[in-house]
Amino acid sequence: MNDLFNTPIDRRGSGSAKWDLMDKLFGVDPVDGLAMWTADSDYPTAPCVIEAVQAEVDRGIFGYFSDTPRYTGAVKWWMANRHDWEIEEDWIVPTHGLGNGVALCVDVWTQPDDHVVIFSPVYHEFAAKVRRAGRTVTECPLKREGDVYQLDLEDAQARLTGKETMLIWCSPQNPTGRVWSPDELRAVADFAERNGMMLLSDEVHHDLIYPGNRFVAMDVAAPDVRPRLVVLTAASKTFNLAGQRVGALIIPDPGLRAAMEARINALDSKPNALGFIMSAAAYSPEGAAWVDAQVEHLIGNRAVFDEAVNAIPGVRSLPLQGTYLAWVDFSGTGMSFDEFNARIRDEAKIAASPGPSFGTGGETCMRINLATTRGIVSEAGARLQRAFADLQ
Amino acid sequence: MNDLFNTPIDRRGSGSAKWDLMDKLFGVDPVDGLAMWTADSDYPTAPCVIEAVQAEVDRGIFGYFSDTPRYTGAVKWWMANRHDWEIEEDWIVPTHGLGNGVALCVDVWTQPDDHVVIFSPVYHEFAAKVRRAGRTVTECPLKREGDVYQLDLEDAQARLTGKETMLIWCSPQNPTGRVWSPDELRAVADFAERNGMMLLSDEVHHDLIYPGNRFVAMDVAAPDVRPRLVVLTAASKTFNLAGQRVGALIIPDPGLRAAMEARINALDSKPNALGFIMSAAAYSPEGAAWVDAQVEHLIGNRAVFDEAVNAIPGVRSLPLQGTYLAWVDFSGTGMSFDEFNARIRDEAKIAASPGPSFGTGGETCMRINLATTRGIVSEAGARLQRAFADLQ
Repeated sequence: MNDLFNTPIDRRGSGSAKWDLMDKLFGVDPVDGLAMWTADSDYPTAPCVIEAVQAEVDRGIFGYFSDTPRYTGAVKWWMANRHDWEIEEDWIVPTHGLGNGVALCVDVWTQPDDHVVIFSPVYHEFAAKVRRAGRTVTECPLKREGDVYQLDLEDAQARLTGKETMLIWCSPQNPTGRVWSPDELRAVADFAERNGMMLLSDEVHHDLIYPGNRFVAMDVAAPDVRPRLVVLTAASKTFNLAGQRVGALIIPDPGLRAAMEARINALDSKPNALGFIMSAAAYSPEGAAWVDAQVEHLIGNRAVFDEAVNAIPGVRSLPLQGTYLAWVDFSGTGMSFDEFNARIRDEAKIAASPGPSFGTGGETCMRINLATTRGIVSEAGARLQRAFADLQ
Repeated sequence: MNDLFNTPIDRRGSGSAKWDLMDKLFGVDPVDGLAMWTADSDYPTAPCVIEAVQAEVDRGIFGYFSDTPRYTGAVKWWMANRHDWEIEEDWIVPTHGLGNGVALCVDVWTQPDDHVVIFSPVYHEFAAKVRRAGRTVTECPLKREGDVYQLDLEDAQARLTGKETMLIWCSPQNPTGRVWSPDELRAVADFAERNGMMLLSDEVHHDLIYPGNRFVAMDVAAPDVRPRLVVLTAASKTFNLAGQRVGALIIPDPGLRAAMEARINALDSKPNALGFIMSAAAYSPEGAAWVDAQVEHLIGNRAVFDEAVNAIPGVRSLPLQGTYLAWVDFSGTGMSFDEFNARIRDEAKIAASPGPSFGTGGETCMRINLATTRGIVSEAGARLQRAFADLQ
């Protein structure tokens, strides 16, 4: 099955943002560069997904689509079978993917004067969406202890201004790769409860978990938080479907759900038929087997990458518990961000996500996407070693 | 080429809203019923569209998509080549289809107290979207003169309350099938100008025009209205792509465009990759040839349908100038809406769009979708004749 993930596919010129925008966005050589920034994968999605789309495309009729139960039923099945999380189909509110889901929540449940809490370093689009909506970010840094990021809720409490009405949580955490324990999740839920905040739990990376860790859904860990809980999910990371723009809000509370559904109806903002069909096909026993194989592949990628990078004095790839996004700390090199960034960009020719974009705590880091072939991961490791060879 | 449009395809159980919801929404027999309501087609889209999607699906990677210029370039080409309308690519703001485009405009350019003008009978979703956004509809009826609906701007002016800030125009007009002349378009533009209203021009049916009529874009007829103009379009009707949910706002004015782009960015509300690829493939010379063949097919459908229906005393299928949506007036039968609707639903077993849903002026009518095989059109004509046989 390993061929599924190791066949080299040249994505240049294919409409791939990751490969075709690395020059424009990061100044990385578009011919020799390795695109390892935004969170999609360089290997094809599961065969069951491709087959489902092919069958639909062969029919050739793309009129108004009514079969969302095929999608919601599959989401329910996936959460129960992969995450021991029992949900009702009618909790599922489809969106145009994770980012659209966050933006809709900010739109529906915050007012212009409100602040939104995030725990940094974290997925940069949380803060970006809050600011684009004209709201204010209250940034609460995670606390790094050795290789592991931890919550510091005492510090967070002290940072609140009294205007916070929403908390956007990331579990598993992008970019630090943390998989949170049930106790940690309950502490976050209590924090949201105590401070009267909506709790958005972005769980989009939940399927990509390394041995020794176990993902637990917020709703499972802290069922009491349901009256203020919105879970955000999508098959986009797990199955490489980001461009098809389908995701879901899972909202147990009927009142919250009605408010969101009214807003989505008013905007006439429903996903597309092929996206639904892809996600429904993905959330299946065949899809699950493919994900297991993918995780095996990622375990190998992580090992190869970490071995190469951790051999560079002063550079540390933090041990990922989940996600395919390596979080590499260059602080031990003593270099400024501009200096190590320039080496990665111009010498290694790797387009990676700059740590500072993830907020406080990301200043000395880069996020490097490992969802690619083993060959590219090895090449990236070798290039980084050469770019920092003077440190050896 | 005619086989493209006349091959019977059973869409029941395929996720087609038109076929699978006719029982639930209209009480029409799901087994023997003919679905002739919502505006999609029962024949496959153009082969060039299917081939483009197949090529993408074969690659199997559906990550983040960057190639919107492929789409915007194709839209520009289509408008120039099919409608003698020269636009700039950067005027094109992609949406999730026509309805989403209308909803976004209402969201961005009206306030809760505002009124929005529509000319009825008209596409029911205009009023629905205005109301779902919490705004108020100012309905200005068209004036029927014989078989033809005309503007009555003197009457419309008298209906204004002073709170109108937007006018939603439909050209070609759904459901009356009118294709407006440049003089009429200029009169509407002047009306919007005079009353300080934004002018939304829904031109989604612009490709489906019958001989003797010529579609002219609002921006061509009335270029002076640009500072308040938003044109709404999509390949959804022309190419049967409604389920793929891609459309565009075409906004010549840079200030208006910036406001809409900011809102779409804040909502992270961008269309999907395959939808872009489909629309881009459609707007091509191959797509144009297919549309010409489709229009030939529709000319035949219109003739067959009108001949059958107009043979029923008191029933009149108004002569369509454009669109594939027959507008049938039952007023000559002397029956109430409930009576002729029940005959159509229970005896003819046709799921059609009720005239009253299109607002004032639709009370005695039904809208019947002819974008299907000749066989279904003939069968519908025969069923209607039988359902009203007592009038013969």
